[in-house]
Amino acid sequence: MNMVKANAVVGQSGGPTAVINATLAGVIRGALEKDSPIAMLYGMKNGVEGLLEERLVDLTARFADPAEIEKLEHTPAAALGSCRKKLPKPGENDAVYEKLLAVFKKYNIRYFFYIGGNDSMDTVDKLSAYTKAHAYDMCILGVPKTIDNDLVVTDHTPGYGSAAKYIAVTMQEILRDCAVYTVPAVTIVEIMGRNAGWLTAAAGLGMAVGLPVPDLIYLPERAFDKDAFFAAVRAALQKHPNVVIAISEGIRFADGTYVCDGFGVASADVFGHKQLSGAGKALEYAVKREIGCKVRSVELNISQRCGAHIASATDLAESVAVGRAAVKAAAEGVSREMMILVRDSTSPYLFHVEHHGISDIANKEKVVPDAFINETGDHITAACAAYLLPLIAGEAYPAYQNGLPSFVIL
Amino acid sequence: MNMVKANAVVGQSGGPTAVINATLAGVIRGALEKDSPIAMLYGMKNGVEGLLEERLVDLTARFADPAEIEKLEHTPAAALGSCRKKLPKPGENDAVYEKLLAVFKKYNIRYFFYIGGNDSMDTVDKLSAYTKAHAYDMCILGVPKTIDNDLVVTDHTPGYGSAAKYIAVTMQEILRDCAVYTVPAVTIVEIMGRNAGWLTAAAGLGMAVGLPVPDLIYLPERAFDKDAFFAAVRAALQKHPNVVIAISEGIRFADGTYVCDGFGVASADVFGHKQLSGAGKALEYAVKREIGCKVRSVELNISQRCGAHIASATDLAESVAVGRAAVKAAAEGVSREMMILVRDSTSPYLFHVEHHGISDIANKEKVVPDAFINETGDHITAACAAYLLPLIAGEAYPAYQNGLPSFVIL
Repeated sequence: MNMVKANAVVGQSGGPTAVINATLAGVIRGALEKDSPIAMLYGMKNGVEGLLEERLVDLTARFADPAEIEKLEHTPAAALGSCRKKLPKPGENDAVYEKLLAVFKKYNIRYFFYIGGNDSMDTVDKLSAYTKAHAYDMCILGVPKTIDNDLVVTDHTPGYGSAAKYIAVTMQEILRDCAVYTVPAVTIVEIMGRNAGWLTAAAGLGMAVGLPVPDLIYLPERAFDKDAFFAAVRAALQKHPNVVIAISEGIRFADGTYVCDGFGVASADVFGHKQLSGAGKALEYAVKREIGCKVRSVELNISQRCGAHIASATDLAESVAVGRAAVKAAAEGVSREMMILVRDSTSPYLFHVEHHGISDIANKEKVVPDAFINETGDHITAACAAYLLPLIAGEAYPAYQNGLPSFVIL
Repeated sequence: MNMVKANAVVGQSGGPTAVINATLAGVIRGALEKDSPIAMLYGMKNGVEGLLEERLVDLTARFADPAEIEKLEHTPAAALGSCRKKLPKPGENDAVYEKLLAVFKKYNIRYFFYIGGNDSMDTVDKLSAYTKAHAYDMCILGVPKTIDNDLVVTDHTPGYGSAAKYIAVTMQEILRDCAVYTVPAVTIVEIMGRNAGWLTAAAGLGMAVGLPVPDLIYLPERAFDKDAFFAAVRAALQKHPNVVIAISEGIRFADGTYVCDGFGVASADVFGHKQLSGAGKALEYAVKREIGCKVRSVELNISQRCGAHIASATDLAESVAVGRAAVKAAAEGVSREMMILVRDSTSPYLFHVEHHGISDIANKEKVVPDAFINETGDHITAACAAYLLPLIAGEAYPAYQNGLPSFVIL
């Protein structure tokens, strides 16, 4: 493509992470370098949804002060806002693409960076296909982020390491908390990840360094068996009074029914409207009924994805790196690809950034491999813990004033 | 009392906090000082419950290495274990006191330090009364800790500042997370504190320094009014699409019914056993039904009390200070009192430690005063935020190895 200086636009899409803004900061840092092909960097508010409405922010001006870029790196959740807009298939309703092209032309935008997960890569893929078919000379690059770690080709995804660190650290604390009483009790910790168990696996990370781990870990990659579960809980209670269990929100029975739907637990309000509980609540009631001991469930909830106060320094550095690398790739004329992380070595941990064709990546899902799940399907393996451990290395703390973190608000 | 060197025993009781071990570390540091009246410091496992069974740990030997004491300061949850044992009224069943006295005599224990909240101070009070009535020469001191901040006489309680910091920091992150989408949505954050709203008030701490705060904050000190609540939520949705509400788990309607019991929301399992949801879940369903927008509820849960990874440096220092001061008071012959924090100044924040008669403190509860709650009963006042802010100052981070925190396990 043509390498004259032109403007660029960057957007964020899908669920927030603790470090998605670190990737935005990486793109800004790249754009501000003196050999950058980018004249002016726009941010689209709320992803392509805002781009269609020309809701643009001049990031070049907003981040003229390097201290603001650093603050942005430690700000959780998408500072530009996000969207869940799915573009139509090119050819089915081209009005939306024509509008996007009109915006690109109006603002002289020749570089398009989209930071997101699986759905966002679908947007990158479709926009790539449309602009290619219509011979519009444009650099379109996907920059990965998702706490779910479910993108293919890349070794792992920026955002995962910080969520995994939040989970692993919180689990160490929960294990201390649960150990204080002598009364038999079961604590069930529900962790995000509907189809892929990467986040739940992080609950067992202590295994890699001889620290305590939950007694049982259930990933969505294995069918959940009621009887095996109760037997395992009973066996664990024989060993010590405080049993801790980590489960993925997405665990399912062999017939495909979600545990949260199929354990005979449902809420109903006074009007009889059924309200679904989570998998943790469902298992809490089930254990109470079946075993009769003290049980509680804890849902780690949205702090998993926005816990910037305990972000992984490794993850943050990688998140910045993929953003910067995207601008470098743009300068080299790369287009219609996604930035990927390549692991060179686990110990010592070494990685580098490459890029890969977007159509190989969009709409595919990477789950936890068999070698990372134990034979009985109720824990992770040592290989899993060793593989994941480097991703949570280092603590990237935000700056605090008066005891509270300072975040960027756009 | 007699000032010859004798042995001491220290215990932890009630719910865990992020810094209850910092107070234990303070007692250990005090006991190890060369002018200390303590020959040997025992730790009782699981409070008085373990003391009755002579389950004692030699802390003098266990913490000979100062690095271990420092690690203990950053370890969440009661390292000695805890209990919820309530002693009988002296005179009603003295067998338990006779057993305790036999243990004291057997181990030459003349100093008794009990770190805990309201229920634990009841134990201190009763043991004080019994030993006094039986003229047993003993130093009995209560050392406060509770995330609930509901003890009287002391300005605030060690443990509160770290829980408040966890809540205040997490709230800043949740506010960022909630701001990313444009679709109208209500997020309800349920915070601990059954009768006192101190912890929930911490959700609004950003007010003191011009940071974002939740739209609405409901404390248990005010009766919860359904109609006023829906009107306030609707008004907030008019202002911006992302409404965040902090509520105490203990909010009640004017008739005294807990919101979690009285909003017509109950779960039932297949056997028809009723399962109670929390107040957050109850309001989530109520808003969904009444207003119809997207709603979710988030329960901060046990991380509030064991989140050592984001402990308040001020709270940690004060927690150590009350432990050390207890040993000093013991050396001065003080007995049957609780250590208290006295605030000398809010800006700059200055405090000192004193002690106060236990019978004025035990079994009383301090709630949030009227001046700290706004007129409409749905937010805190600026005075409240200013008063609480110094308690979360500073970040006391534990040491990390391989990305995971190092905790002491006894």
